[in-house]
Amino acid sequence: MRSPTPSPPEDVPEVVPDEFDVIARLMRPLAAPEALDLMDDAAVIPSRPGFDLVVTKDAIVEGVHFLPGTPLDLVARKLLRVNLSDIAAKGAVPYGYLLACAWPDSIGWSGREAFAKGLAEDQAVFGLKLFGGDTVATPGPLIFSATLFGWVESGQMVKRSGAQAGDLVQVSGPIGDGYLGLQAARGQLEHLDAPLRAALIAHYQTPQPRLDIALAGAHAAADVSDGLLADAGHIASASGVAMEIALEAVPISTAGQAWVSEGDDRQARLGALAAGGDDYQIVATGPEPLPGFTVIGRVIAGEGVCVTLGGAPVFLSQTGYRHGNLG
Amino acid sequence: MRSPTPSPPEDVPEVVPDEFDVIARLMRPLAAPEALDLMDDAAVIPSRPGFDLVVTKDAIVEGVHFLPGTPLDLVARKLLRVNLSDIAAKGAVPYGYLLACAWPDSIGWSGREAFAKGLAEDQAVFGLKLFGGDTVATPGPLIFSATLFGWVESGQMVKRSGAQAGDLVQVSGPIGDGYLGLQAARGQLEHLDAPLRAALIAHYQTPQPRLDIALAGAHAAADVSDGLLADAGHIASASGVAMEIALEAVPISTAGQAWVSEGDDRQARLGALAAGGDDYQIVATGPEPLPGFTVIGRVIAGEGVCVTLGGAPVFLSQTGYRHGNLG
Repeated sequence: MRSPTPSPPEDVPEVVPDEFDVIARLMRPLAAPEALDLMDDAAVIPSRPGFDLVVTKDAIVEGVHFLPGTPLDLVARKLLRVNLSDIAAKGAVPYGYLLACAWPDSIGWSGREAFAKGLAEDQAVFGLKLFGGDTVATPGPLIFSATLFGWVESGQMVKRSGAQAGDLVQVSGPIGDGYLGLQAARGQLEHLDAPLRAALIAHYQTPQPRLDIALAGAHAAADVSDGLLADAGHIASASGVAMEIALEAVPISTAGQAWVSEGDDRQARLGALAAGGDDYQIVATGPEPLPGFTVIGRVIAGEGVCVTLGGAPVFLSQTGYRHGNLG
Repeated sequence: MRSPTPSPPEDVPEVVPDEFDVIARLMRPLAAPEALDLMDDAAVIPSRPGFDLVVTKDAIVEGVHFLPGTPLDLVARKLLRVNLSDIAAKGAVPYGYLLACAWPDSIGWSGREAFAKGLAEDQAVFGLKLFGGDTVATPGPLIFSATLFGWVESGQMVKRSGAQAGDLVQVSGPIGDGYLGLQAARGQLEHLDAPLRAALIAHYQTPQPRLDIALAGAHAAADVSDGLLADAGHIASASGVAMEIALEAVPISTAGQAWVSEGDDRQARLGALAAGGDDYQIVATGPEPLPGFTVIGRVIAGEGVCVTLGGAPVFLSQTGYRHGNLG
């Protein structure tokens, strides 16, 4: 592997890049004024009267959250997007991020350059700047963590804990493409049309955080990362309420519909889509339908999430997604 | 290994702890109001008019930044302290932190409980609260990253980039105990008295961030984590100036003095202490001596760091500390 564009090591085989070179050549171009050219140990964020700063931090691990061999520009973009999804679900506007990278020696300059390229691409897409961070060596797998910052008007952050009995449960778009996307990325789902498979892989690798959708009027919200049923359950638990969700009301993509219709057990397949993770839609509750959302159930007194199909309660063997080893 | 105190798994062998149990039982007691009981995906930090938020993020890796087998309460405390050291060097007051933990399956409940205990201890010491974060599984070594937040009066953060020719270069305390502490922690330095060795190990494992010392009047500052000469060099580079540092003026602990005096090459040993890392003192520049600091040199026009001994320039084979594999 050699670096494709102007690269600092001259005519030598790829070696472990120098941390200071990586910062100076790859990261500094990404930096915000707040980062002081990444020449400091810290960034400084001026207070913004009338606004609250929303902060979130998610980490991703090679072999757990992304498949080994995934191009590193895509990994960088997914790292930002899973965090941006949390910012979106809080009703906040993205501002900037801190980054921690643990690099094994096997990743040379070209890999790190690809990673920085992915960051730059999504910084442009989402109007984001790098505030700083840390780069460390590791004998283990690649691990990245990002701390994302967003602004929201004071007191207006949409929490998980605001759901009230009588609210409508709503989602911002198709559910289950993350679950199917992982299978497609592993080379499965070969019965599906190639364009559908490609769309699923793209969704899994480069999800779309729903920063485009407004949450005005929402009582509670969370992004769908652990799986719709698990994330709805987090809202229920944080709010001290229960939810009923009608499986047949949950919106499903064309690919998802094709996958459901090719199976024998419709209930199991609908349940799998609703339990799978990595969708990065938003599940919200509120007294009225929110523009752009689909109503899938309602908030009631009690605890837990009750799933129905055709009005009858159904039992699902797996209602939450836990990140296992993708191996 | 079994958990020593009230532990959730009843009479069963230790298994991989459930992430939600870890959050609910170990992390929630550490959480700030801003963390919404860790029941949300994000924390919310209200703006504080008149103040800037200082943010910094450092990661530590088992086998790179701490020795395998180090008790996890000490690892937790070191994680907070290396980040607090950055906050201290910026003249800020600690506020809270986000945490990302990558746990291998080999670390069971008791290990995670020890880690949480260390966090709790240092939260009490430093008046700090947990704002949230992420817990992931990894097939590799333990990796932790923390994002630390601190407050500073608007525009008053002490940067690396403010040094001016004519400033005095100053340090907040003994240099080299981090370098010797790593050796002592590895079982080396057996010639030193046992109490000195124990103090060095304690310094390496649980460094003291210099939050107790004021930076009023400083033009520039950085914490000494990469090594005095490297960190002074960072200030010089960010400020567009050079520095002269007199090796014999650099303060050294009793243990450091004992180690220097038992060697043949005084210059090399003084140089090793000044180049070693993990001291977590503060190196600063300013027109006047700062209370509690020791003057070790001066800022001049040019670039780089020139080291002298007895007035004559000396050449050091290693002027910067790079974290290698501690193996």
